[in-house]
Amino acid sequence: MAAHKLLLLPGDGIGVEVLAEVRRILAFIEQKGILSFEIEEDLVGGAAYDAHGVAITDAAMQKAKAADAILFGAVGGPQWDGVPYDVRPEAGLLRLRKELELFANLRPAICYPALADASALKRELVDGLDIVIVRELTGGVYFGEPKEITDLPNGQKRAVDTQVYETYEIERIAKVAFELARVRSNRVTSAEKRNVMKSGLLWNQVVTATHKAGYEDVKLDHMLADALGMQLVRAPKQFDVIVTDNLFGDILSDVASMLTGSLGMLPSASLGAEDPATGKRKALYEPVHGSAPDIAGKGLANPIAMIASLAMALKYSLGKPELANVLDRAISEVLADGLRTGDIWTEGMTKVGTSEMGGAVLKKF
Amino acid sequence: MAAHKLLLLPGDGIGVEVLAEVRRILAFIEQKGILSFEIEEDLVGGAAYDAHGVAITDAAMQKAKAADAILFGAVGGPQWDGVPYDVRPEAGLLRLRKELELFANLRPAICYPALADASALKRELVDGLDIVIVRELTGGVYFGEPKEITDLPNGQKRAVDTQVYETYEIERIAKVAFELARVRSNRVTSAEKRNVMKSGLLWNQVVTATHKAGYEDVKLDHMLADALGMQLVRAPKQFDVIVTDNLFGDILSDVASMLTGSLGMLPSASLGAEDPATGKRKALYEPVHGSAPDIAGKGLANPIAMIASLAMALKYSLGKPELANVLDRAISEVLADGLRTGDIWTEGMTKVGTSEMGGAVLKKF
Ligand SMILES: CC(C)[C@H](C(=O)O)[C@@H](O)C(=O)O
Ligand SMILES: CC(C)[C@H](C(=O)O)[C@@H](O)C(=O)O
Repeated sequence: MAAHKLLLLPGDGIGVEVLAEVRRILAFIEQKGILSFEIEEDLVGGAAYDAHGVAITDAAMQKAKAADAILFGAVGGPQWDGVPYDVRPEAGLLRLRKELELFANLRPAICYPALADASALKRELVDGLDIVIVRELTGGVYFGEPKEITDLPNGQKRAVDTQVYETYEIERIAKVAFELARVRSNRVTSAEKRNVMKSGLLWNQVVTATHKAGYEDVKLDHMLADALGMQLVRAPKQFDVIVTDNLFGDILSDVASMLTGSLGMLPSASLGAEDPATGKRKALYEPVHGSAPDIAGKGLANPIAMIASLAMALKYSLGKPELANVLDRAISEVLADGLRTGDIWTEGMTKVGTSEMGGAVLKKF
Repeated sequence: MAAHKLLLLPGDGIGVEVLAEVRRILAFIEQKGILSFEIEEDLVGGAAYDAHGVAITDAAMQKAKAADAILFGAVGGPQWDGVPYDVRPEAGLLRLRKELELFANLRPAICYPALADASALKRELVDGLDIVIVRELTGGVYFGEPKEITDLPNGQKRAVDTQVYETYEIERIAKVAFELARVRSNRVTSAEKRNVMKSGLLWNQVVTATHKAGYEDVKLDHMLADALGMQLVRAPKQFDVIVTDNLFGDILSDVASMLTGSLGMLPSASLGAEDPATGKRKALYEPVHGSAPDIAGKGLANPIAMIASLAMALKYSLGKPELANVLDRAISEVLADGLRTGDIWTEGMTKVGTSEMGGAVLKKF
């Protein structure tokens, strides 16, 4: 059995703690003889900056390029607020996304039944919620040039960011959304601001054309991004797959994740194109939550989003979709048993720390 | 008593119906001898396109420039989805904002106690909610150049939008936010994506500098725009005044408005700079809701957002803040009496149409 190459990038804050739980699960999978791994580890974010003066080293990038899957914790923290823009913690993550061409970011927003009451929304609006935001991740305003601050003759400054999309970038992310919809409820909602942005207009046209050219079995709707923000709050269950650009995806997926009442629970996958020769695609898996500096190092963090990210890796990169389901079920069962980390704890439930939660999932696995 | 010059721009869809209710209130104010008006009216949006082939004529722009306040209904509808980009209905509104330099868009998100149960959020999270989003309205990606779609040699297209902010644009909107906070709960939260956008970085720096230079009595926080989207859903009452750019403001204010359960209820004001000579500022008042083509022309639309926009006009443009309060109170009383248009109707309440609702407010006024 060929070993799967994994790269672990714990990063900063609670990233370190939640990835430790994943390491235990990986060891268990190996020990059971289900898969074998060749595991590398490196620094990213503030940790890399402190050690090397950059947010990720070239050596770590090499490992990332060689990996079958990257498991990424989180980056950032107040101690790096003052570092230069180009080496800020986030730059490590952005470099990984860009250089590995991880253009398709899948962000499921699932409401675990056991947690429906933890949502800010009324139970009936979120109970059973299961949507996926497909966010374009290597284009748009995140990477377009010019991106600069210049000095004006009058002593003021002028900042510019550039949103750029080419046809092929929109087409390939639309295809990911349509294909995903086919194995779900067969509906895609595409969001942009075509009434204000030329990139929104092109987005709309290309998604429509891609739909016509081979995906007409999928139901496609278009919604303005601001209206979609509203509808997410009003009636999130109306959606199945939402496809949108890098910046709208950033905000809308955060709003969606909060609806579930389970931010500490949500995983994400960032996928590249399939290599026609090997059938493999580059992939990075990370929790939607951040580095949570306020609780870092205390053993309080919820490891479930990170563990659920491993489940996505099993499904999309390691060829073990059934095992992914088993792992997801283990998470649900632990919740049904009443175990809760602080972020999702409510009266009457059993409060546990990071490693107890990880251990409980492992036990059900 | 010098007459106040008003320009009414009903626009499309329910814009026409809701503005009709405002006309009745204006007539009443005149008849009581409280204020006198010189009222002009013109077309905007799809209506202007159908009549003149543009989304607003130069003649209407002239009237807008001469007006003390513009009362604007709504624009757009599916029948204009195919019109050329430059003359699409929204272009009329964008031209008004830009040429009149209406850089400060105030969007209150208030939860009327009588409607707290209509919110998607749990009652305790929104009951008593009273926040204002101060959205920059004449800069950013809405107006930056280049903004274009070009043909590439490979037969594909490339779309570009440009986000631009200069120091003075950020400074003036920050001042509006700080000054507004002073007459409220004295707290401002500034939102951007400084971790990804250079304009976010400049935004953050200029807001911080403006705060230091004369507004240190106001509490200032910075939050990433995606995190703010989350927090709006999780615990909206933590905010007082939120200041953000044109595009983030568009989405976040829509999310915020939906929290209140009262989208058909929310007004907005778009203000220019004070003319040092006259002390006057250009101003446009419009409901946050759109033209609602599905219910247009049926007498079903909720006129309250439009009437509350008139209240904002009384306060910010017509020198009658007490009268604005009386009008706002009339709205609350009508709701407390159980009157509801279809959009906010719930079991046990009295369902009314547009003109009944307008008439009821007028009666309490
Ligand atoms: C950390 C940051 C650069 C990142 C983003 O803006 O994409 C984060 O918010 C996310 O959503 O993954
Ligand atoms: C109609 C449209 C151009 C407008 C905007 O995007 O600003 C609207 O969504 C708004 O928020 O006023």
